[in-house]
Amino acid sequence: MTTIGLPELLGFVTAVFTRRGVPPERASAAAAALLHGDLTGMSSHGLANLTRLYLPLLDSGRADPAADPRTLTDAGAIVHLDAARTLGLWSAGAAADLAVARAAAYGIGMVSVRGMTHIGCAGAHTLRIAERGMVGLIATNCGRQRIARPPGGRVAMLGTNPLSVAAPAGDHPPFVLDMSTTVVPTGRVRAAARAGDPVPAGWLATDCGTPVTDPGAFDRGEAHLQWLGGRPETGAYKGFGLALAVEVLSALVSGSGRGPDPEALDGDGGPSGRDDDIGMIVLAIAPGVLRAPEDVHADAGALFGSLLDCPPSGDLAVRYPGWHEAERAARCRAEGVPLSPQLYEELKQLAAAENLAMPGAVGVAG
Amino acid sequence: MTTIGLPELLGFVTAVFTRRGVPPERASAAAAALLHGDLTGMSSHGLANLTRLYLPLLDSGRADPAADPRTLTDAGAIVHLDAARTLGLWSAGAAADLAVARAAAYGIGMVSVRGMTHIGCAGAHTLRIAERGMVGLIATNCGRQRIARPPGGRVAMLGTNPLSVAAPAGDHPPFVLDMSTTVVPTGRVRAAARAGDPVPAGWLATDCGTPVTDPGAFDRGEAHLQWLGGRPETGAYKGFGLALAVEVLSALVSGSGRGPDPEALDGDGGPSGRDDDIGMIVLAIAPGVLRAPEDVHADAGALFGSLLDCPPSGDLAVRYPGWHEAERAARCRAEGVPLSPQLYEELKQLAAAENLAMPGAVGVAG
Repeated sequence: MTTIGLPELLGFVTAVFTRRGVPPERASAAAAALLHGDLTGMSSHGLANLTRLYLPLLDSGRADPAADPRTLTDAGAIVHLDAARTLGLWSAGAAADLAVARAAAYGIGMVSVRGMTHIGCAGAHTLRIAERGMVGLIATNCGRQRIARPPGGRVAMLGTNPLSVAAPAGDHPPFVLDMSTTVVPTGRVRAAARAGDPVPAGWLATDCGTPVTDPGAFDRGEAHLQWLGGRPETGAYKGFGLALAVEVLSALVSGSGRGPDPEALDGDGGPSGRDDDIGMIVLAIAPGVLRAPEDVHADAGALFGSLLDCPPSGDLAVRYPGWHEAERAARCRAEGVPLSPQLYEELKQLAAAENLAMPGAVGVAG
Repeated sequence: MTTIGLPELLGFVTAVFTRRGVPPERASAAAAALLHGDLTGMSSHGLANLTRLYLPLLDSGRADPAADPRTLTDAGAIVHLDAARTLGLWSAGAAADLAVARAAAYGIGMVSVRGMTHIGCAGAHTLRIAERGMVGLIATNCGRQRIARPPGGRVAMLGTNPLSVAAPAGDHPPFVLDMSTTVVPTGRVRAAARAGDPVPAGWLATDCGTPVTDPGAFDRGEAHLQWLGGRPETGAYKGFGLALAVEVLSALVSGSGRGPDPEALDGDGGPSGRDDDIGMIVLAIAPGVLRAPEDVHADAGALFGSLLDCPPSGDLAVRYPGWHEAERAARCRAEGVPLSPQLYEELKQLAAAENLAMPGAVGVAG
């Protein structure tokens, strides 16, 4: 592992985006959203996606670095936007900020967006809302990209459709749930394939439902990504239903591209379509408009504090989603961000290709 | 099975509630919400709960038949209510109707309620929103009732915290997701115990995580209800996180009773507390305020129609949550509601005790 200071990494990624025509303030916000993945340990959605996902999006013209998003409707508590293929890493955070502003005025703010590109970790954007003392919710589909099959179906119809909810937790780190509605996102399957590791039973299965632990079987089309809940009797229809709820909230409301669409039925049944014209909903709810902000703060602290105080059944303390991520992020801010040898090498090659200085390492270990 | 006409059952339940002081229009709405469980096949949340749950609530004074809910804040797009311990079967539907009215004016309507009693099937209330062409979301906690443990914890801290999302589906039956955030609600475990049936591996587990298939082990305290997602590596933290998201949206926003609370730590670790002072959030989103209603209708039809057209991998057609329920409800409306011998006997005893005529059977089978 090589450790690089966070400010240096932010500066480097900002420079890479800026050189592709992304305005500086957008580039800087996009860099922070991208690094949220590395800071919180969701490394499948972090820097590793810079050369795999975001630069190809910009270089192929599927993302537009400097377009102006358009306001389609502004009705006060709700706003409807076309993101105009700008970097989703930036536009999702901007939409979250807009939802916060409207929630401060109306008690709730909803921003519905179509025409987006990949937003990175949804939790990076809901956390912005929680840090302002509000409850944030983001649901986003995968545009027209289809990865997972409906239970009992033999055609991929839906993306991994992430859902994130965040809330303040008093004086404790904010609660941040950030989840795919499939058992895992595809990035974790591919990371296991690259590392040569098996995946747990329950992530992948054959047509007949037999568990598969070889992650390579996914991209060979021999095994399919399972829904949260696993088998039908343990909740597959709930994971599938949550993915549909995300599709409705993100795409039906905004009018963006959709996974389930007649065109999905044209192919061979395998994964199809591209994550273009992604839809998203952002909700910000301001409990402080309903009741005394100091009561909300105290109640949030009691809610999450009592979970932290729950006696453990084993050796590990009880924690809630967002707690470990906040601790890891604080460590990275203080000590630098550890990068795998492979990722460090990728960044070095990128720096050379871009004629940019590689950020200096603050430490090397392992 | 004995089959009874739906109007007769509705009249009977309405009369039972009315005799306990519930105003007639509330009693009628509560009866319809209760029978939604039987109509849709969610029988653990239907008529069986009349003598088990709702009449004891009224008879013990934990529910108030005729109190007036209070408006605590009205800010236009959002309304904050105290349900004043009225029947949740009624007040949840009234809150959904209020959210619809506000969404028609503002594009979104949010009603946050505290002081509720058990609302029955959340899907009965979100369906009202979908039937008006809007997207509905309900999240409700279980008041101070604690049933499930945080992953790695040895004290029950949270209820089964249901979440429901419903949406119009063009000319197809509405999409209605109605799920507990645990693998199953407790009613299904107890129904299996009464029937003497084993439960699937994945519903219950011992302290060490060993699967338990004897449903009686749950009420003996020998096995614990598992989260949606099952083991940590297949998503237990997602089910737990969804339950916390529900707790935040329902209880932290409204200021109702909470599962995770310092008082939860006082007991022996087993299930504790009562489902008093339940919190709920209802959201109605009107896509027709953002874009042409005919486009929303067509897009919804294409979304859910393409799922119905998905080629099946086996013998069963692909369906989405709400489809089978709508078909079953239509059959019950036309042909009557089939009741198990046990439930029929319970209603007969109730009719005798109340000095009410037992609704006549339209058929007996099996």
